[in-house]
Amino acid sequence: MDENWLVRETSFSRETMLARETVFTTGNGYLSTRGAFEEGYPGERGATLIHGVFDDAPVVITELANAPDWIPFAPRIGGQRLHLDEGELTGYERVLNLHNGLLRRKLRWRSPAGQTVDVEFERFADMADKNVLVQRLRVTPVNFSGEIEIEAGLNGVVANMAREHWNKMEQGSTGENGVYLESSTRHTGIMLCEAMRLLLVDAPGATFTVEQRENAPTVVARLRADVGQTVKAEKIVTLYTSLDVGRRTRAATLQKLDEITRGGPAFERQLAASEEAWERLWERSDVQIEGDDEAQVATRFNLYQLLIAAPQGDEYNSLGAKTLSGFGYRGHVFWDTEIFMLPFFTYTKPETARDLLLYRYHNLGGARRKAAYGGYKGAQFPWESSLGGEEATPRYVSGPDGAEIRVWTGDIEIHISADIAYAIWQYWLASGDDDFMMRYGAEIILDTAQFWASRAEWDPASGRYEFNDVIGPDEYHEHVDNNFFTNYLAKWHLELAFKTKDWLRQRDSAKYEELAGRLGLDPASDARWQDVIDKVYLGIVPDSKLFEQFEGYFQRRDVDLSTLEPRDKSVQALFGIKETNSTQVLKQPDTLMLMYMLPGEFSQETVRTHWDYYAPRTDVTHGSSLAPGIEAILACRMEDPEMAYPLYMQACQVDLKDLRHNTADGIHGGTAGSVWQAAVLGFGGVRVSEKGVDAEPHLPAHWRSLKFKLFCHGELREFDFENSQQ
Amino acid sequence: MDENWLVRETSFSRETMLARETVFTTGNGYLSTRGAFEEGYPGERGATLIHGVFDDAPVVITELANAPDWIPFAPRIGGQRLHLDEGELTGYERVLNLHNGLLRRKLRWRSPAGQTVDVEFERFADMADKNVLVQRLRVTPVNFSGEIEIEAGLNGVVANMAREHWNKMEQGSTGENGVYLESSTRHTGIMLCEAMRLLLVDAPGATFTVEQRENAPTVVARLRADVGQTVKAEKIVTLYTSLDVGRRTRAATLQKLDEITRGGPAFERQLAASEEAWERLWERSDVQIEGDDEAQVATRFNLYQLLIAAPQGDEYNSLGAKTLSGFGYRGHVFWDTEIFMLPFFTYTKPETARDLLLYRYHNLGGARRKAAYGGYKGAQFPWESSLGGEEATPRYVSGPDGAEIRVWTGDIEIHISADIAYAIWQYWLASGDDDFMMRYGAEIILDTAQFWASRAEWDPASGRYEFNDVIGPDEYHEHVDNNFFTNYLAKWHLELAFKTKDWLRQRDSAKYEELAGRLGLDPASDARWQDVIDKVYLGIVPDSKLFEQFEGYFQRRDVDLSTLEPRDKSVQALFGIKETNSTQVLKQPDTLMLMYMLPGEFSQETVRTHWDYYAPRTDVTHGSSLAPGIEAILACRMEDPEMAYPLYMQACQVDLKDLRHNTADGIHGGTAGSVWQAAVLGFGGVRVSEKGVDAEPHLPAHWRSLKFKLFCHGELREFDFENSQQ
Repeated sequence: MDENWLVRETSFSRETMLARETVFTTGNGYLSTRGAFEEGYPGERGATLIHGVFDDAPVVITELANAPDWIPFAPRIGGQRLHLDEGELTGYERVLNLHNGLLRRKLRWRSPAGQTVDVEFERFADMADKNVLVQRLRVTPVNFSGEIEIEAGLNGVVANMAREHWNKMEQGSTGENGVYLESSTRHTGIMLCEAMRLLLVDAPGATFTVEQRENAPTVVARLRADVGQTVKAEKIVTLYTSLDVGRRTRAATLQKLDEITRGGPAFERQLAASEEAWERLWERSDVQIEGDDEAQVATRFNLYQLLIAAPQGDEYNSLGAKTLSGFGYRGHVFWDTEIFMLPFFTYTKPETARDLLLYRYHNLGGARRKAAYGGYKGAQFPWESSLGGEEATPRYVSGPDGAEIRVWTGDIEIHISADIAYAIWQYWLASGDDDFMMRYGAEIILDTAQFWASRAEWDPASGRYEFNDVIGPDEYHEHVDNNFFTNYLAKWHLELAFKTKDWLRQRDSAKYEELAGRLGLDPASDARWQDVIDKVYLGIVPDSKLFEQFEGYFQRRDVDLSTLEPRDKSVQALFGIKETNSTQVLKQPDTLMLMYMLPGEFSQETVRTHWDYYAPRTDVTHGSSLAPGIEAILACRMEDPEMAYPLYMQACQVDLKDLRHNTADGIHGGTAGSVWQAAVLGFGGVRVSEKGVDAEPHLPAHWRSLKFKLFCHGELREFDFENSQQ
Repeated sequence: MDENWLVRETSFSRETMLARETVFTTGNGYLSTRGAFEEGYPGERGATLIHGVFDDAPVVITELANAPDWIPFAPRIGGQRLHLDEGELTGYERVLNLHNGLLRRKLRWRSPAGQTVDVEFERFADMADKNVLVQRLRVTPVNFSGEIEIEAGLNGVVANMAREHWNKMEQGSTGENGVYLESSTRHTGIMLCEAMRLLLVDAPGATFTVEQRENAPTVVARLRADVGQTVKAEKIVTLYTSLDVGRRTRAATLQKLDEITRGGPAFERQLAASEEAWERLWERSDVQIEGDDEAQVATRFNLYQLLIAAPQGDEYNSLGAKTLSGFGYRGHVFWDTEIFMLPFFTYTKPETARDLLLYRYHNLGGARRKAAYGGYKGAQFPWESSLGGEEATPRYVSGPDGAEIRVWTGDIEIHISADIAYAIWQYWLASGDDDFMMRYGAEIILDTAQFWASRAEWDPASGRYEFNDVIGPDEYHEHVDNNFFTNYLAKWHLELAFKTKDWLRQRDSAKYEELAGRLGLDPASDARWQDVIDKVYLGIVPDSKLFEQFEGYFQRRDVDLSTLEPRDKSVQALFGIKETNSTQVLKQPDTLMLMYMLPGEFSQETVRTHWDYYAPRTDVTHGSSLAPGIEAILACRMEDPEMAYPLYMQACQVDLKDLRHNTADGIHGGTAGSVWQAAVLGFGGVRVSEKGVDAEPHLPAHWRSLKFKLFCHGELREFDFENSQQ
């Protein structure tokens, strides 16, 4: 296998264990499982998170419930169960194959009694059959002959850190060395059945025992192995939730298990089918970089994480900010999805982009009520979204010293409604999916436009509309007035709404009339929208060439970030929330962000002027992980790929190298999305507009070439840039 | 139709409207719909409640969410929509046919403009196809010829009183005069799709319009009718929730709609199939009383309410205390199900009884945690149960003056765990369903026995085990020690557990070993159980022939209830909670209740002695509605059917006559169950024991005969008692 598809680890350390569990996550768009060990390890944070399986939780409102553990699979040698914290580990290698999603781990282990074995674990989430998970275990005695036991089980005693979410409903045997475990989330009542079967390959003398341990049904195989002789075991797992099949989860799960294992050992067969599905994904989605293996594997790693996390064929779930790879942000969905991750799907897997946007459509009900509760019209999407479309942002969290910190984003970080409209427009532009636009997209754009128009405040003194008391993407500054990003995008959104209305009226006047009736679109709303477009304040400060990020920003204290180096934490962690708020230091440069999003609206010179001011004031290393990728793109647009490159690598390696010391909480999904954008829209210089697609690449000097594909208007276009500098 | 199958109402009054909505509930074991009007009425409390569709709610924790309204169906005459609070009503009749579940209403109405029409509404929930609801509307102009419009719709703007539970996800047209509405509960994310199609019968000139009103898609038919010419319209509704089919609710709903309406008008066809299903239900379940039409129809009314409410072919839901007919008790499940309602199913529809008990099995997880949270072993069922098996009893409610009243039942009304074991035993005895007992029943009985043994407190001073700080079935007395009902039943339960263990060990030793391992059954637990059985305190007071209801009861203030007459409210409402607690007045006579439940354990003389003491002290008219039916049975056992009869009618007519002024909140499901028990086990004198079934009838003098059937050991036995006194 080409090393550029492999993430490899050659030693094990307790210190990095939790971050590496995140890195070695496997998944298939239905669920993901963190890279914890099949045999377990003290202090591990193993988890399997399934799209949509939310349960209530104090403070954080709702979270994806860590599902009953399906991975337990371990040998016992002379009665001693394999545990890496006992005995002696004399060989260790773990490899994640990004090309086919297979995770493999090889150990040489000496038991406390001195028996040495070679052990090889493999597992994958079947990309071709989302309800199937597959494991293989190979054990070879190195210095003895004797009895080996293989223990394979399901374990319902799981928690999200310490919070338990499941009630066991039933456990039992399926016959033929299989067991099942049926559980239900405690509050939302979502049912989940998992079943497994243990199969040995070429082991005629083996005996099997089913052990119905409470909430942990287990099958144990016993057999004799001679020195050098490899015992091969497979464990096939199937699972369904009530979100899939209603409450017939057990029947569906057992039927699937029988179907998969009917022909005996199934690992190779399932892997082949899964590999084919992976092949089809990479065929469209791969980004090939020649001349930089580190960047190549890191780039693919980020795309892999997006591919395993995005719901497949499922319009009722979206992609959380931390994907399905950790407990951070509880599986909640933020703007990260639409602005950072969605472009990857819009351009390489548009059917998934459509589903992700349908998730928003299906949650318009919650958005309408959020608007109504605030006293506004139309639809205002929640800052954090989960099950049922309610605002899921905690109102407070515990700070490091235990004090409660009020979280304001759910109340006033309002730009998300425009971000979603922007993503719909981008999807429409790229896909030409008029059907989506007519049936769903237009309604979202128009009803969120109603929100913006009613949220705008008229200031008679200055004769302008304002959006006051907001948080922009730069979250170091709370409760600001007239955030440039927010105001500008709101204006852009209202203009888009007019275009959408006109388009819809022409394409399907009956649908238009229906929507106009339901959403209250009339001459009065038209007039209001136009008035806000004409008169919204846009941060133009007299005698300055700069848009001011928000009113009064330039008066805040200026801090030379270089004076704080070296540092290992964010400026907010150093200064505190209040003090940071009083400076010009940015968590992310949202004025630059806007210029990235709307490239046609700002001149090269304007961008450069703003770069020169805002980039040095941005906490790009420890502020938002979303910033480096976007800055890399702007650097490319300013024709400076060498400046872009370290920013790109900072984004690429945020989790591979745990640059922000929080990879244990899960993959930085938005950052992963920004990697694709930086590669394709930055170095590749691709721009998609109404007129079509063009590209002006700017490759780092050491890259020999950059290749990728993207869909534009239903057509898969291939780009292959040789580096002219080489 | 035999009048003894009909509940008839010949006038409409606003005052009784809400109670009558409850009485005229239609349903099919999947959902029920209150008898609100198709055209709506100000102040109505229409509702459709679907098994399992719970959503979070403040204070009451969780409640069945009133589903989007499927019944809107009304004519417009000369542009004026039918409304009974406008124009003039000159004819009115409403009839519920208990035999086939058809609700029919006939009106003669003069519009404000003076146009008079005869209108006939019919509707039923299809008993043969649970996801289908059927309506018919017939309109006949009496004094004019002209345009008639028929409006048929779905309405997502619904609430549980004022609390809204749904987000609209999508509305649309199905083609062919159909619309759909897809919604999701706000917190639990349960999806529901409803679809409908409007069909006219013999109306070639009609035109149809689809009106996509926000959250209320509607189809309007317009046609001309001549005086005396009847316009016939049908509305076919289908619906599925994600509990049925996962998130494919829309596809399932639309497919079913097409299937049902493929052949055009479907009312007659669906009614015929539904009637057949009803026929099969009544074939086993009917209780026939000759010589007392009032008792006959009232008895059938109660059985009807149980038949439409019990989940059909569904082991994940149970039957709430108020069935599915109102918002009272929020759809929560109490002991009412196992002790009062279950016997009807155990003896006439054992497959439903099994499902109801499986619901408890599936919720053992919650029961185990409730025990663990209290510091006990084993499983303790919640006093109120809903989705997910958590304790769903509110911790407080608002009193009439707005003050918060602490509700203690969830904490200390612990007898429910023994009630469930009792119900399992009763089901087993009647059905001989060893398979259920081995796989499920035994585990419940044994793990709840573990709870009792650990909950028992040893009092070294008296040398006895006690159960202190409890509430017995008589809820007028809170925080009592050694409630006789609770202590006796706990002892009985532990004895049952020993028998169950022995039986299981003999029948299937492997299953026994598995259970023993999982539940911690060992010599120590055996010893503890036996010790509690031998030494639990049973309320025997020196120098008294009476078991004392709880310790110190006899010292409480005695009140002659006759001195409070006439009264129209409960003693607790008259005296207040605290004052009532200090008296001997009972909400229900739980010592007598126990003697009813365990007839073999108390002599006739003992029963009579206790009756003489406790019955006069019971607030039988306004205390618990569960009391009269049980007292009627005891009266029969004391061979006094004439004393039993008024008690029986009090139970029978509690909702038909709104005797307790709370029928608006829903049918008294437990009372309905007590009616069947009083008829069959009381007047019919049936007793089922290990030895078999026998009967010693005691009919009221004016009854000519009593006929019913019941299953015993899988065999349907028929009983036909002629009254020998006549």
